[in-house]
Amino acid sequence: MAKRSGKDQPVVGVDLGGTKILAAVVAADGALLGQAKKKTKADKGPLDVLGRMATTIGDAIEDAGLARKDIAAIGVGSPGPLDPESGIVVVAPNLGWKNVNVKAHLEGEFHIPTFIENDVNVGTLGEHRLGAGQGVSDLVGIFVGTGIGGGIILDGRLYQGFNKTAGEIGHMVIVDEGPQCGCGNRGCLEAVASRSAISRMIREALDKGKKSLITDLIGKSASQIKSQALAEALRQGDKVVTEALQKAAYYLGVAVAGVINFLGPEMIILGGGVVEAMEDFYLAEVRKTVVDFAFPNAAQGVRIVAARLGDNAGVLGAAVVARIRLEQEESAAA
Amino acid sequence: MAKRSGKDQPVVGVDLGGTKILAAVVAADGALLGQAKKKTKADKGPLDVLGRMATTIGDAIEDAGLARKDIAAIGVGSPGPLDPESGIVVVAPNLGWKNVNVKAHLEGEFHIPTFIENDVNVGTLGEHRLGAGQGVSDLVGIFVGTGIGGGIILDGRLYQGFNKTAGEIGHMVIVDEGPQCGCGNRGCLEAVASRSAISRMIREALDKGKKSLITDLIGKSASQIKSQALAEALRQGDKVVTEALQKAAYYLGVAVAGVINFLGPEMIILGGGVVEAMEDFYLAEVRKTVVDFAFPNAAQGVRIVAARLGDNAGVLGAAVVARIRLEQEESAAA
Repeated sequence: MAKRSGKDQPVVGVDLGGTKILAAVVAADGALLGQAKKKTKADKGPLDVLGRMATTIGDAIEDAGLARKDIAAIGVGSPGPLDPESGIVVVAPNLGWKNVNVKAHLEGEFHIPTFIENDVNVGTLGEHRLGAGQGVSDLVGIFVGTGIGGGIILDGRLYQGFNKTAGEIGHMVIVDEGPQCGCGNRGCLEAVASRSAISRMIREALDKGKKSLITDLIGKSASQIKSQALAEALRQGDKVVTEALQKAAYYLGVAVAGVINFLGPEMIILGGGVVEAMEDFYLAEVRKTVVDFAFPNAAQGVRIVAARLGDNAGVLGAAVVARIRLEQEESAAA
Repeated sequence: MAKRSGKDQPVVGVDLGGTKILAAVVAADGALLGQAKKKTKADKGPLDVLGRMATTIGDAIEDAGLARKDIAAIGVGSPGPLDPESGIVVVAPNLGWKNVNVKAHLEGEFHIPTFIENDVNVGTLGEHRLGAGQGVSDLVGIFVGTGIGGGIILDGRLYQGFNKTAGEIGHMVIVDEGPQCGCGNRGCLEAVASRSAISRMIREALDKGKKSLITDLIGKSASQIKSQALAEALRQGDKVVTEALQKAAYYLGVAVAGVINFLGPEMIILGGGVVEAMEDFYLAEVRKTVVDFAFPNAAQGVRIVAARLGDNAGVLGAAVVARIRLEQEESAAA
């Protein structure tokens, strides 16, 4: 019998978010074998969060009825920027982190190879291996939430670029001299199409005295309107919300068309909380805008689809990261 | 002694332009062994142009003191869109061509493998193998002329995308609702940063009654101002021309910053008639804008450089195409 390789063993995927930590034990075929969840409690400091991550991982392994020795690797999806080589999260504003070595801490705890990757790349890799992008060689994942991030798969692998920063589609300018972006520039895609941008457009309409259902759903003061509230107002045909969403989806479509003209991938995967709450609307609006803005011969046959992994995207993607890195290390050692 | 392979033999590179046909015999090390040139005379029809191409190729081989049997392959850079597989130029508006099979015609004439590629990819491949991008794994070439085109090298190879159309950076929108573009959309990079856009900006300033040296250099009616006239007016400190060029270079810089944020290549090569006529100005303006618009960690160490092959870019690039395709065919056959 062949020696059992790490390739066949389950791995743990961890989704480190600003409010909660999710962990899941994932089989080689992508099946979820066990899960656990804890609050992040970032205010208690990095060491405390790392401890809670370790507990969550342990709980997920137990939930799967397995022992630590059964786990081949741990993958962690984290806000970035981060350094996948050293395993250090360089800066994570919503955690209040600077230079936190996640890899060293978890390897010290579990004695299992541990890998980290930024959450957008994790989302893209997850969709590529287990979600909407299976079998596709070249794709771009775009995730719309509070901000907008992206990941690029070329020739079946994550494309990271010269400084390992590739994928920041949220910070391509599409409206020169447009609205202020969190990055300091103006008119980036993120400044006109993210949930923050949609919230801003709706607030501006309300400030002008326009009426909207959204005030009943969220109150007038909310600076970030939740995706579910946007979806509900859209469903009810609210004019203010619909116009803001159409504008945001149009800008997203313009950016997608630009990516198709410039890079020409086989597939564009749209995900993130905003898109997932209004999938049909977003797909229709983006596809329509792409017809207007991409060259027909560049767009021909290019699939624009919704992400599939939903709430499990983080843990499944992190598990994919763990498995890919393990494969790379095994093939490098062979 | 090893059998002499096509790899060591000279190839012919052909630059098919709207006004002239250039051909050069190029050695394996990139040395120019012989050259020839003829007018295109596109108005006489495709067959006539193909005949003149064949004559130019023959003249270049003779100029090199070689015979047809010494030539391993022919590469042709042509306006596109075209199909590199079949060797057909699908549409070339400035030649008045539709579905012209360049490959079949030249192979029928010379009995030498012939390959075609669009002129922007040819320019990028030439710079990568013989010019500014030698030894660089991942780069983007951007060529500013009447229009704006681009080519992408990833992992040392031309990246063509799903529909073999990749590189159309000129048709990414950076000014939503901006000036009309030749492609039918508004606010594409080409509509705000090409020579046509610069000419338009200058015309608009003149129409408003502003004074400029450019009227002495070209007359008031020229719709396309030549790059050399722009460079001369810039050198003399003409305000109208300088402002138009600064704006165009700023937009180019915004697009380059977007490419750095999104794709993150190691090098950006700026070429084409406009850039080449004012290299220092363009490099300085684009680099300045990139500092403002790209993430510092994404832009760190990324080189923004000028194309090096100049007037020979077309024939040298086409020779590179011939050599690469030959290598691919030989390795596929091996």
